[in-house]
Amino acid sequence: VVDATGISPEEWTLWRAFLRSHARVSREIDLQLQRDAGLAQGEYATISAILESPRRRLRIGEIAEALGWEKSRVSHLIGRMEQRSLVAREACADDARAVEIVVTPEGRRKQLAAVRAHAAEVRRVFLDHVSPDEREVMTRVLRRVIDELGSTGQR
Amino acid sequence: VVDATGISPEEWTLWRAFLRSHARVSREIDLQLQRDAGLAQGEYATISAILESPRRRLRIGEIAEALGWEKSRVSHLIGRMEQRSLVAREACADDARAVEIVVTPEGRRKQLAAVRAHAAEVRRVFLDHVSPDEREVMTRVLRRVIDELGSTGQR
Repeated sequence: VVDATGISPEEWTLWRAFLRSHARVSREIDLQLQRDAGLAQGEYATISAILESPRRRLRIGEIAEALGWEKSRVSHLIGRMEQRSLVAREACADDARAVEIVVTPEGRRKQLAAVRAHAAEVRRVFLDHVSPDEREVMTRVLRRVIDELGSTGQR
Repeated sequence: VVDATGISPEEWTLWRAFLRSHARVSREIDLQLQRDAGLAQGEYATISAILESPRRRLRIGEIAEALGWEKSRVSHLIGRMEQRSLVAREACADDARAVEIVVTPEGRRKQLAAVRAHAAEVRRVFLDHVSPDEREVMTRVLRRVIDELGSTGQR
């Protein structure tokens, strides 16, 4: 059975489960990060992405790529994080006109305060409910979705 | 290989793919809904949930359940949608103290304006990249995640 939109009930069910599971999981993760570190999910993800990068510094476009966000949205986030002294801008060594974002000691301290509880929460709300076989299927599908949509970093 | 948090690289990869794919897909859907109907994704989902309910009216808690949002967040959304005349509050026939949300003709008109383009966009950004077998696995996993986290409607 396919309705006038050409989408079957099973397809709508998956789409809604995708949105709804993300909303529920995201809410729990936000609560945990606020409680343990006073950080929003995007702030935590930004700090983690920078700290895990080879040189511990990333451009705005690289952060946008890692998060799947638009560059302009990341710029706003970085502005707010700078005001709270979680990150700082530094001139890029290779390109004087470019700017790279680094994590301040305060940002690092907050992320460290949350990292174990965060991992436990990611496991509790999500990973514990996915078997290794299912994980393989889901990772393959979600990466395909990301790849098909292409880069956001340059926008 | 498992790090100090007890989470393997494959598990982190899935978790990040989940967040990133949602962010990317959500961005595309938001752009489409704004363009075709001037509606945010949560507004469109709220109107659709009400129109698809048996009596075409839902309580705030039922909308929260459908979206996976907190009740308080839905209340704020409904307030803003009321001001824009997209939905209205009506007393519940069975319980004079309870309130139900209905869609106004204006809300219905906006949803109708977007429904075909929305379905096409959901297909383009997400459903087209999932085979029937993969769909079954993902639906099963995401529903399990939702069920394990339990209801948000009463909070």
